Amino acid sequence: MFKDATTDEVNNVVQQAWKAYHVYRKFSLKQRAQFMRRVAMELEACGEALIQTAMGETNLPEARLRNERARTIFQLNSYADACERGEWLDIRIDTAIPDKNPPKPDIRKMLVPLGPVVVFGASNFPIAYSTAGGDTACAFAAGCPVIVKAHPAHPNTSQIVADAIFKAVDKCIMPEGIFAHVHGVNFEIGKALVMHPYVKAVGFTGSYIGGKQLFDWANQRKEPIPVFAEMGSVNPVFLLPEKLRSAAADIAKMYAGSITLGVGQFCTKPGLIIGVESGSLQTFIHDLGKAVQQITPAAMLHPGIVKSYKEKKGNALLQEEVHLVAESETTVKENEGLPTIATASGSAFLDNPVLHQEVFGPYSLVIRCKDMNEIIEVAKYLEGQLTCTLMATENDIRQNEMLVEAVKNICGRIILNGVPTGVEVCLSMQHGGPFPATTDSRFTSVGADGIKRFARPIAFQNWPNELLPDELKNENPLGIWRTINNELTKSAV
Amino acid sequence: MFKDATTDEVNNVVQQAWKAYHVYRKFSLKQRAQFMRRVAMELEACGEALIQTAMGETNLPEARLRNERARTIFQLNSYADACERGEWLDIRIDTAIPDKNPPKPDIRKMLVPLGPVVVFGASNFPIAYSTAGGDTACAFAAGCPVIVKAHPAHPNTSQIVADAIFKAVDKCIMPEGIFAHVHGVNFEIGKALVMHPYVKAVGFTGSYIGGKQLFDWANQRKEPIPVFAEMGSVNPVFLLPEKLRSAAADIAKMYAGSITLGVGQFCTKPGLIIGVESGSLQTFIHDLGKAVQQITPAAMLHPGIVKSYKEKKGNALLQEEVHLVAESETTVKENEGLPTIATASGSAFLDNPVLHQEVFGPYSLVIRCKDMNEIIEVAKYLEGQLTCTLMATENDIRQNEMLVEAVKNICGRIILNGVPTGVEVCLSMQHGGPFPATTDSRFTSVGADGIKRFARPIAFQNWPNELLPDELKNENPLGIWRTINNELTKSAV
Repeated sequence: MFKDATTDEVNNVVQQAWKAYHVYRKFSLKQRAQFMRRVAMELEACGEALIQTAMGETNLPEARLRNERARTIFQLNSYADACERGEWLDIRIDTAIPDKNPPKPDIRKMLVPLGPVVVFGASNFPIAYSTAGGDTACAFAAGCPVIVKAHPAHPNTSQIVADAIFKAVDKCIMPEGIFAHVHGVNFEIGKALVMHPYVKAVGFTGSYIGGKQLFDWANQRKEPIPVFAEMGSVNPVFLLPEKLRSAAADIAKMYAGSITLGVGQFCTKPGLIIGVESGSLQTFIHDLGKAVQQITPAAMLHPGIVKSYKEKKGNALLQEEVHLVAESETTVKENEGLPTIATASGSAFLDNPVLHQEVFGPYSLVIRCKDMNEIIEVAKYLEGQLTCTLMATENDIRQNEMLVEAVKNICGRIILNGVPTGVEVCLSMQHGGPFPATTDSRFTSVGADGIKRFARPIAFQNWPNELLPDELKNENPLGIWRTINNELTKSAV
Repeated sequence: MFKDATTDEVNNVVQQAWKAYHVYRKFSLKQRAQFMRRVAMELEACGEALIQTAMGETNLPEARLRNERARTIFQLNSYADACERGEWLDIRIDTAIPDKNPPKPDIRKMLVPLGPVVVFGASNFPIAYSTAGGDTACAFAAGCPVIVKAHPAHPNTSQIVADAIFKAVDKCIMPEGIFAHVHGVNFEIGKALVMHPYVKAVGFTGSYIGGKQLFDWANQRKEPIPVFAEMGSVNPVFLLPEKLRSAAADIAKMYAGSITLGVGQFCTKPGLIIGVESGSLQTFIHDLGKAVQQITPAAMLHPGIVKSYKEKKGNALLQEEVHLVAESETTVKENEGLPTIATASGSAFLDNPVLHQEVFGPYSLVIRCKDMNEIIEVAKYLEGQLTCTLMATENDIRQNEMLVEAVKNICGRIILNGVPTGVEVCLSMQHGGPFPATTDSRFTSVGADGIKRFARPIAFQNWPNELLPDELKNENPLGIWRTINNELTKSAV
């Protein structure tokens, strides 16, 4: 096992990261991209050892972990491409107008890196949102060194990936300190990292309690820093009447799969399904229950997650007017999560905040509302979400504008006739929503726009062309899209 | 005089703003822009009454206030243009790839408004950064209703401008509640506004104490919200050796003007000038002192500002090893700020945090460092700043890379051979810097990029073209620049 980092070790890695920051931020976009691609190659080169170790530490199946590694490699490569394209730099150039009164100076703006970033790995994505995951890739692209706090549930997996990154650091002759990896079970290590004056931003994926604590610490610093915490979501699904009448059975089948995918251990798992009481809703509930009965339970990530699932689900089922619909018919082992569906009325839901809380695992609650107005009330009452889904015909959408607007108001991604699980890695993805889904709804943690989390603008006023960074030079040597005098162009000034 | 708003009144205006938000956010970019241009017209139509009232309440001279009104009108019109161009929406479209495994859905992302915004007016810009100022214009462009808390130092000026906005609301048939104006001397009114659950963002320009308090309240909410507080800066100026040798007298003249412009009441006033001890620096200090002796004192904004200037300046001058260089030779009246220059050694400055604090008014401190290394130490030791300025030849810049990098690290705008006062309104402007200059260095409060402060992304997954907002439709009916499958284009999908 790994020993917790000491306070001295934490201080030392942050000091090294601060030094590395002053070197790395001057590296060209191309150099950063090459480094990221090398990290991807080294990750690939970890081979079977990574997959086997991750299987042992997380109980996730081999195929899933192979996919997750492929996704992580894709992230590193595609964010490297985005880094090099440079559109994320948001370059704006306004040329001088010397004969204006007063004279207008030449001003040129671009994003620059914030400084060392601390990344807390996610237990449910031991590769894609951990050591060399999305946050790390975005920070490297932005020009920031990264200090990863290994998730204590998969320290060996994290160490293997960290060693791959160290190899990439060596091979690309990156500054020492651009990457550091610390272990820690004690929460004081996380606190020491977040409170260190040379740390300038934090990325986190995990529980509300954990994320909110980091956010509070960061805001209590002498110099508050941004925390990008993705803290989960119940991902409500709204079943609209026409659609439900025409496809109750199909929706039930699709959702039985989505709710139990990966033992329900996705932050986009649909934990709440809302419809108007009707024969079609009865059919849906019946079919969903039947389908879930056939799902075989599987082992969850670690004992803490199993315990929490049992407790939170148990508590939800104890609430007044909550009824069990169905459970998997297969006998569950101690380390497994039992697929479960429950139901409650709209009024019971509106009256009881306990039912609004995420139950992380293969569980979903179907809310039976008395009419569309009550559904709108539910939508208005919900807290911020990563995703909302509408199962709806075009007619349903047109006839329920108030609901659609209320739903837009509370989420970062709004899916029509699909499932929220499966988060595509692409520029248009928004993975982030109003609090408490995330601590900053203005940014995404998936897709190359996530690079912007770790950068801030700086404007150069009245600098001669030769002394400007390449990104801002008249001749546009990097061939980047830039806004010059309010016009987007790749042309020279 | 105006009465303080009651708790009921505060609650009522926020409720109205929340209702208006649901209507206004669906208004087209064109409708928003038309409304903003109408506000600009109504502001112009306020005529002499506005200028005379502002002169009476702020002691600012007529010419300055006419310029400030012109600037405010320019802001409203140019942000309206930017609103309509729509580049700020950061549209990303990734089209579906149905035969990928798993199939890639169609995803389209754009920015949507956050919700009602509370704006606290600035005492030093009664028009341009108050009631219809930059924050208000940005929020309207983003699609957010605005509640202005009038600055108690210019309530009548604020009321005149508010009435102009109400006229524009009527003429453009905007939803009731899109704008509200409340008076209040008691800080509890500000607190009630910031803590109201329907308020979703805050704009503020003023003191560190005020801004930090709003920031803390906002983060203590059940749902924390972003606060964009611009809290001042000492705007350090670094005199590099070759430049200083060649132009000490010219720089002194230029800076005497910048330090005392508008009685030193700009957040970009240069409050700290740093050079290496030398004959040229002596010449500079001597000439700066001489020039400041000739500046006639003028009335400051309000008695609180005069009092604070006297106290903070007095305290700075009492510090060990701080020496008075010169004061204006004209006798100062009770409501006036006395132009003053002081000096201290680099080591005295490094040892004494009191000297790092902003003295709001016509005062600047010249730091005599023993060598360039000490200047770098000073730069590294300084807190976040709105601006830093380098007075330097190209040789100076090339030979002092460490200093230049340290300076970039602490500011939002870096000026070469100019003065920091004078903040151009254009897209390339960055008015915002690392804490404590502002609470969020990733955003600007001047220039149309300020619109993004009040918006967040939302992704539409798998929506048919007809049901998408116009901004995201295949045919690009608004003719906006969009990133489609990683390519910036104005073409249709």
